[in-house]
Amino acid sequence: MSLSTTRIVAARVTPIAFRDPPLLNVAGVHEPWALRSIIEVETADGRVGLGESYGNLETLEHLAKIAPQLVGLDPFDLNALTRVVYGLVGNNPDTGATFAPEGDKARASALAAFEVPFLDLQGQILDRPLYQVLGGAVRPHVAYSAYLFYKFAQHKEDPGYPTDDWGEALTPAQLVQQARRMIDSYGFGSIKLKAGVFPPEEEIAGLKALRAAFPGYPLRIDPNGGWSVATTRRIMPLLAAEGLLEYLEDPVSTLEEMGEVAQFSPMPLATNMVTVAFGHIPKTVQLDAVQVILSDHHYWGGLRATQHLATLCRTFGIGISMHSNSHMGISLAAMTHVGVTLPNLSYACDTHYPWQEDEVIAGGKLSIRNGVLAPPPGPGLGVTLDRQALARLHQNYLDCGIRKRDDAKEMRKHQPDFNPQCPRF
Amino acid sequence: MSLSTTRIVAARVTPIAFRDPPLLNVAGVHEPWALRSIIEVETADGRVGLGESYGNLETLEHLAKIAPQLVGLDPFDLNALTRVVYGLVGNNPDTGATFAPEGDKARASALAAFEVPFLDLQGQILDRPLYQVLGGAVRPHVAYSAYLFYKFAQHKEDPGYPTDDWGEALTPAQLVQQARRMIDSYGFGSIKLKAGVFPPEEEIAGLKALRAAFPGYPLRIDPNGGWSVATTRRIMPLLAAEGLLEYLEDPVSTLEEMGEVAQFSPMPLATNMVTVAFGHIPKTVQLDAVQVILSDHHYWGGLRATQHLATLCRTFGIGISMHSNSHMGISLAAMTHVGVTLPNLSYACDTHYPWQEDEVIAGGKLSIRNGVLAPPPGPGLGVTLDRQALARLHQNYLDCGIRKRDDAKEMRKHQPDFNPQCPRF
Repeated sequence: MSLSTTRIVAARVTPIAFRDPPLLNVAGVHEPWALRSIIEVETADGRVGLGESYGNLETLEHLAKIAPQLVGLDPFDLNALTRVVYGLVGNNPDTGATFAPEGDKARASALAAFEVPFLDLQGQILDRPLYQVLGGAVRPHVAYSAYLFYKFAQHKEDPGYPTDDWGEALTPAQLVQQARRMIDSYGFGSIKLKAGVFPPEEEIAGLKALRAAFPGYPLRIDPNGGWSVATTRRIMPLLAAEGLLEYLEDPVSTLEEMGEVAQFSPMPLATNMVTVAFGHIPKTVQLDAVQVILSDHHYWGGLRATQHLATLCRTFGIGISMHSNSHMGISLAAMTHVGVTLPNLSYACDTHYPWQEDEVIAGGKLSIRNGVLAPPPGPGLGVTLDRQALARLHQNYLDCGIRKRDDAKEMRKHQPDFNPQCPRF
Repeated sequence: MSLSTTRIVAARVTPIAFRDPPLLNVAGVHEPWALRSIIEVETADGRVGLGESYGNLETLEHLAKIAPQLVGLDPFDLNALTRVVYGLVGNNPDTGATFAPEGDKARASALAAFEVPFLDLQGQILDRPLYQVLGGAVRPHVAYSAYLFYKFAQHKEDPGYPTDDWGEALTPAQLVQQARRMIDSYGFGSIKLKAGVFPPEEEIAGLKALRAAFPGYPLRIDPNGGWSVATTRRIMPLLAAEGLLEYLEDPVSTLEEMGEVAQFSPMPLATNMVTVAFGHIPKTVQLDAVQVILSDHHYWGGLRATQHLATLCRTFGIGISMHSNSHMGISLAAMTHVGVTLPNLSYACDTHYPWQEDEVIAGGKLSIRNGVLAPPPGPGLGVTLDRQALARLHQNYLDCGIRKRDDAKEMRKHQPDFNPQCPRF
């Protein structure tokens, strides 16, 4: 464990594309391929720390600039990593400057992409699971929620792989069917509906069907900022009826509008859209605009930043949970390791994981059972790469032609006049 | 480095008393003996992690209850330590509950007392300096300031050891003399005057003499809440003259009063009295009452908590520095290790260290040179105990009869009608 043998000698970034079902949201519909990047950081003694981030071109450019500058660093020196990232991404290289009020998601994302592999290496060097490096577990596992989507039966154009077997979900009855399969398969104890797709009253009919089919299950709805303040005000009595919702996520699309809604909302407001960086916190607090922050280590700056955010939320009495994009098992492992260390993780977390059929980690997909996942055992993240799968998913990336997610463009294949402008309702 | 060999097998708390000069402050004068506790946490393979905390009876009782409950823990499991501490100290054992708005200094202090030895052990196990365990250094050393005190030439009653050779400091000329010796000996680049002892105009005369003798040196004054809001308003033009002060520390004694002063103060306000726990932050932010928090890992909950506090300050644009009580080299090493990791440590830190002649660490006192101190080299904190010195200082504790600091009682030996009630001016 001498310093010289654990120095970083290489960092690699591999873009991948994996199959994604035609899931609907306010912006359109998921394309047949979801993009992601797989990050490997290697030490002189041959350990490999893993990470996972976005796969769009801007992120890939940032990661490509950073990777070669990490050679020679100690995986414990997160401040050195931060200096490298701040020197290459964003406007202000001063790592101690007050966080910009407008946020800096690109920079925090680049930092997180490498921080997780650094932490994975720390765990491997210490021969301890990552959650122990992060200060130890306060719970044995993290609870995840059933993440329901309205969806088409199939993609408009043949993606070159078999159609998923989830079928169409455009009606309350179909939503209930989707929820039942998801709960039967994974044991989820709470339900989230991705919304903003249909007029709110139709989506509330879906919620009511879910409430009837799954009494006692906490429900959430997330229109991704697709509603106006006026619409939110109009339908609030419907949402509040019978304690329908555990929390209401991003009904409107700006922090100021969330502050307006908070003034008449009888339920907590959650967000992964208006408070997405430390620089957004002062105004969030000032407006009392958000009661639950759906943290996401991928854009808050990593797992240590997630812990800082959790302490900050604990200071201001703001609840905390976790947001998810389409992702592989590396991200799920990272979310789970940090999740078990957060004393105030007060809600089941989101994950798209059940919607992904592909996997890049050895041994295949991690198993969520009884609605929870324990951190994979073993040192660090506890997951390793399936290099054949990585090669295959990278080939998908090269072949699929998608370089930037565009759900609206995909939606126009189904509905040529589709306009993703918000508020839609 | 297997888990079983690094498990904790014992934790010891040893109260000590060390010589302290007759330094004046708003509460009276330092007694001849300052109290402190030395904490040792030992692993199965014989490593010893060190910590240092307060020496009053309440703290000692808390630490004595906690120590035996740590046996069997992994030094990396800070959440397990936290569970033990929350189970034994304070009202609410829920480690995820929102921080109490009234603060909980006793609990955070008990946590910090053991967190530092845990972190020291982590560094030893990793064979890396503690600052590297904490995420790496952003600077090679921490700047400290000359901490001037009004002082008597000698204690009223013979403490049984030779009188210090600093002499009396009750006039501007004597303050300048004290500052010159301190700067000549340690190279300090900024000056802090402990105040609240004489009427403010007299103390401002001291500041002016210091400004004349040390042009360009940042100056601070700390009346420890000894002034009223009206007094502070009256003398503010004097304080503001010629940009006399870098910041004004705790002119008044409550958060609400600090908020009042902030409204008319042309200079930043600093505190180690009104914002001393995470639970105090929301009101501090709401009132914009404080522009510099003088952090102190001993009562904020440890070194990780100090990092959380620094991120929180970076979020809200609040400056950060460090507070100090009379302390030994273990605390100075801990302050320095965390200090080099904080990107936004924007002011030279306080330390009483030059006033202490005794030392409990092997090799004697750490050397502040050119006003800065680098973290001691070697794994973990980089300091070990001088067991003979520990035994001697523990004997002092047994012999001195002091069990709780009482500067007012000591002051009444000099001035029988002394009343420490604040505001004094």
